[in-house]
Amino acid sequence: MVTDWKSLATGKRDAILKSIPEKWRLGKIPSVEEQKDVTGPYIQQFLDKKEIEITETDAVAIAEKVAAGSWSAVDVAQAFCHRAALAHQLVNCLHETFFDAAIADAKALDAYYAEHKKTKGPLHGVPVSLKDQFHVKDVETTMGYVGWIGTFEGKKGDSRHKTFESEMVRELRELGAVLYCKTSVPHTLMSGETVNNIIEYTWNPKNRYLCSGGSSGGEGALIGLKGSPVGFGTDIGGSIRIPAAFCGLYGIRPSAGRLPYEGMANSMDGQNSVLSVVGPLATTARSVRFLVKSILSQNPWLYDPGVVEMPWREDRYQAVWDRVNDSTGELTFGLMKTDGIVNPQPPVARAVSMVAKAVEKAGHKLIDWEPPSHAGGLATTFNTWSFDGGKDIHSAFALSGEPISQQIKMTYGTEPGPEKSATEIAKNNVAQRQWKKEWTDAWNGTASKTSTGQPIDCIIAPLAPYAAARPEKYKWYAYSAFVNGLDYTSVVVPVTYADKSKDTYEDGFKPMNENDQAAYEDYDAEIYDGAHVAVQLIGRRFQEEKMLAIAEYVGQILGKENI
Amino acid sequence: MVTDWKSLATGKRDAILKSIPEKWRLGKIPSVEEQKDVTGPYIQQFLDKKEIEITETDAVAIAEKVAAGSWSAVDVAQAFCHRAALAHQLVNCLHETFFDAAIADAKALDAYYAEHKKTKGPLHGVPVSLKDQFHVKDVETTMGYVGWIGTFEGKKGDSRHKTFESEMVRELRELGAVLYCKTSVPHTLMSGETVNNIIEYTWNPKNRYLCSGGSSGGEGALIGLKGSPVGFGTDIGGSIRIPAAFCGLYGIRPSAGRLPYEGMANSMDGQNSVLSVVGPLATTARSVRFLVKSILSQNPWLYDPGVVEMPWREDRYQAVWDRVNDSTGELTFGLMKTDGIVNPQPPVARAVSMVAKAVEKAGHKLIDWEPPSHAGGLATTFNTWSFDGGKDIHSAFALSGEPISQQIKMTYGTEPGPEKSATEIAKNNVAQRQWKKEWTDAWNGTASKTSTGQPIDCIIAPLAPYAAARPEKYKWYAYSAFVNGLDYTSVVVPVTYADKSKDTYEDGFKPMNENDQAAYEDYDAEIYDGAHVAVQLIGRRFQEEKMLAIAEYVGQILGKENI
Repeated sequence: MVTDWKSLATGKRDAILKSIPEKWRLGKIPSVEEQKDVTGPYIQQFLDKKEIEITETDAVAIAEKVAAGSWSAVDVAQAFCHRAALAHQLVNCLHETFFDAAIADAKALDAYYAEHKKTKGPLHGVPVSLKDQFHVKDVETTMGYVGWIGTFEGKKGDSRHKTFESEMVRELRELGAVLYCKTSVPHTLMSGETVNNIIEYTWNPKNRYLCSGGSSGGEGALIGLKGSPVGFGTDIGGSIRIPAAFCGLYGIRPSAGRLPYEGMANSMDGQNSVLSVVGPLATTARSVRFLVKSILSQNPWLYDPGVVEMPWREDRYQAVWDRVNDSTGELTFGLMKTDGIVNPQPPVARAVSMVAKAVEKAGHKLIDWEPPSHAGGLATTFNTWSFDGGKDIHSAFALSGEPISQQIKMTYGTEPGPEKSATEIAKNNVAQRQWKKEWTDAWNGTASKTSTGQPIDCIIAPLAPYAAARPEKYKWYAYSAFVNGLDYTSVVVPVTYADKSKDTYEDGFKPMNENDQAAYEDYDAEIYDGAHVAVQLIGRRFQEEKMLAIAEYVGQILGKENI
Repeated sequence: MVTDWKSLATGKRDAILKSIPEKWRLGKIPSVEEQKDVTGPYIQQFLDKKEIEITETDAVAIAEKVAAGSWSAVDVAQAFCHRAALAHQLVNCLHETFFDAAIADAKALDAYYAEHKKTKGPLHGVPVSLKDQFHVKDVETTMGYVGWIGTFEGKKGDSRHKTFESEMVRELRELGAVLYCKTSVPHTLMSGETVNNIIEYTWNPKNRYLCSGGSSGGEGALIGLKGSPVGFGTDIGGSIRIPAAFCGLYGIRPSAGRLPYEGMANSMDGQNSVLSVVGPLATTARSVRFLVKSILSQNPWLYDPGVVEMPWREDRYQAVWDRVNDSTGELTFGLMKTDGIVNPQPPVARAVSMVAKAVEKAGHKLIDWEPPSHAGGLATTFNTWSFDGGKDIHSAFALSGEPISQQIKMTYGTEPGPEKSATEIAKNNVAQRQWKKEWTDAWNGTASKTSTGQPIDCIIAPLAPYAAARPEKYKWYAYSAFVNGLDYTSVVVPVTYADKSKDTYEDGFKPMNENDQAAYEDYDAEIYDGAHVAVQLIGRRFQEEKMLAIAEYVGQILGKENI
């Protein structure tokens, strides 16, 4: 039965706004022309000094402050609830707020601390935001679908509605984290922009002409506005890294099976050729590490059959620092300036150059990296997104009859197409495995090109052709998605800001093809001016510790690590 | 084009026999009535004393003898080539011999040892047999298909024919192993009996009325006859464990991603819901461990993108011994006597009881284990075998027009059926994941039933309803296959021999259903008398070190570990 999707959507949109206490409501929000950047001084005007201090502290330091008894969990929770409420009003980044539950949990943590003179766990009092795929008790999960309102993943009358919790939620509570909001996503999750019929569009807080990224776009926008110190997103084609990059954050795409995905809502659940993975985004590299390490301390492999028994390996993390602190221990980087299909726009090309120069200046080695069999490998990755011909997502739209956003139509059209057969899927899996083997061999092969005799440590690459995409213009997913196909570890590192005085195409630039032409035409130095620009550092499979160390180090030598 | 499959098959069968040096050929082989058991004294009559000594030494001790300079690699290789040649003539267990290459490799190893005064690697001089899915240069891979003769995996004119090597072959060579033969498999690999149109049928050397198991049935028969000290099989539904159990050996089914499968031939390649895994079978538990540990020392994750970076964890292995050697460190076992669908035949039921009694007597705890959602979980596992409706295997048969064995027809019929769609496959994957989660929770839940407050360490279970199946009577795969569906670690431990004086159904035994009735009717105490009987010890995912320690320990307390 097709419902009145519009009133359902409006009702939900209003309910989100109404869940914000009256005292935190803003009046008219300025237009983008009036106020392009709503971060920093703009949002600070609505907060008191203490709230600003708390919310501009990273997750690691918050945990330290609360553990030391300097700040109460309640003070911290209240400050972040307030700032998250402001953020939502400025850029539409929340699907759910549960501030009262958060304050109650924070009170319980403070009581625990008072009684036991110790914290409940390493995340004691740290607010953690969650993408709207996590199930949290007493809270709805819509994943941006109007048809999911009032249901459990679209199923009406399912007893798990507002009662079931995802495995990681249980672990975060055990660790002492304070949960307080769930963040916006594009309906289907399959877009680098965050758009749906409930919250409509999540804007980039640094530059409201641009999107905040997707699919964890609510996380990007919220953390970018410091309405959260750290949050969890998911990534099947770039969905953690895109919002991290677009919003000036660190974010990790771990290999599948490292962190627990058990009990999360998803699109095309059961497609297991390229798995969506879960991972944190945060304002600092060390906070990303803090969260990964904390979750692993809960032995998630004992509770989630999809997690590999691989505890946090501190020695791997430390080994990188030992090398960079020892003048003989240089790192070796592969440099991938372009994928040869769509060139990065000028701000991104400059960021990649900046990182390359910084690591060379710091004494490390750089070799050129050309990705093996790129077009074919990419195809095996993109194919997995439509194994079912869009059947799953179209059936979710059909629940309410809501319209499909242009961004999703680009990939999935307006109705389901033919499904792939078992044989076609198997063929794709074999081709993908062969491509992975080519990468494995090529990566090992770099040993002959480095001075250390060891293969490269990681690859410096664009994360997207764009610093951040303009609405309906996110079209080329290859830079982020090939990493998912390979199941490699990738960490986004913020590098710089788009600068109209520097970031222009050179005279006579000739696009290589139609896709490259589109990226070229979409660029507008004036509009992009001031936007965050990032790169990704790509490591081999299950190299989370190593890559977090390298990302933290690169952040430091770039002078961006301002803890 | 359909070829004359019969002459191709006969030609290949003759070529295998002719590859055996004249001096090692046997005359007429006695009938099963004349000589049921061809192990021990029977095969020994064709060997000299030194050959018997060498071939009746386990892999660990062989490595020690060669490393100490007591035996040359050539002497060892020659003894095993001879005994393997005899084994094949007695039970049809080889698809390929390459004895000359083995002797040449052994000579090179002896020369290396003479020059460097050290071994090339831990497996220096250890003969290792390989299931006919491994590609070895200069050697064909038929996987039992007549249509694969003279091709690379059925592809005529492919340059990889006889030139390509599987990743693990490279690693075994690096480790110093001597490769000398490839062992028989059922065409398609999808049977617990080993039958194909080339070697016809691989018999159980201990009891030639019975099969040697499958699909690594050639390995089971060969190692059972001590024509190899250790070999590698693969397992998607029991194919390592079945021949290990039927032939009185230890064998491990590791979790997927622990050992390198890269570059092996396979059936239904690209089906990635339940993956086939590779693992060793050997005469002793410590030899199985030796091979697993040796392969992991080669960092296979750097060469096979499917392998998880998880080195051999000696501490996990040692922890079991620390517990059993400490009177307070009892182990806890779950006891699964039946799957509730098909009861094990009397010899298997007795073996399970023997193990249960032995561990209790040794001071360990036992609790009953009922597998959660067994029928549904099994279905999600069996479904994966026919996602493609049998298209892949039927196309392999069609290459030559050869007939399909009755064993394969049971599952796949005579022509392909409908394929599953992407949506159906995804649905199955989700159901399987939910079943895994139920197991996870149930396993954790046993903590409340143990005296240690910890969940059980492993489960004692039948590996099959049969001690070994009679031809065309292997019908119930559930005991081995559910472990594949769960991706758990399982080690087969030989326990006893079928004994017609003890192993009878109790009066008034009532089969639970048709399948149970079939198992009941297939049992014949007279025919089974003397057959090997084993159990499997099942651990959680990626518990190879722990399970190998427990299997070794259980073998010891059973008094079967005769090193």
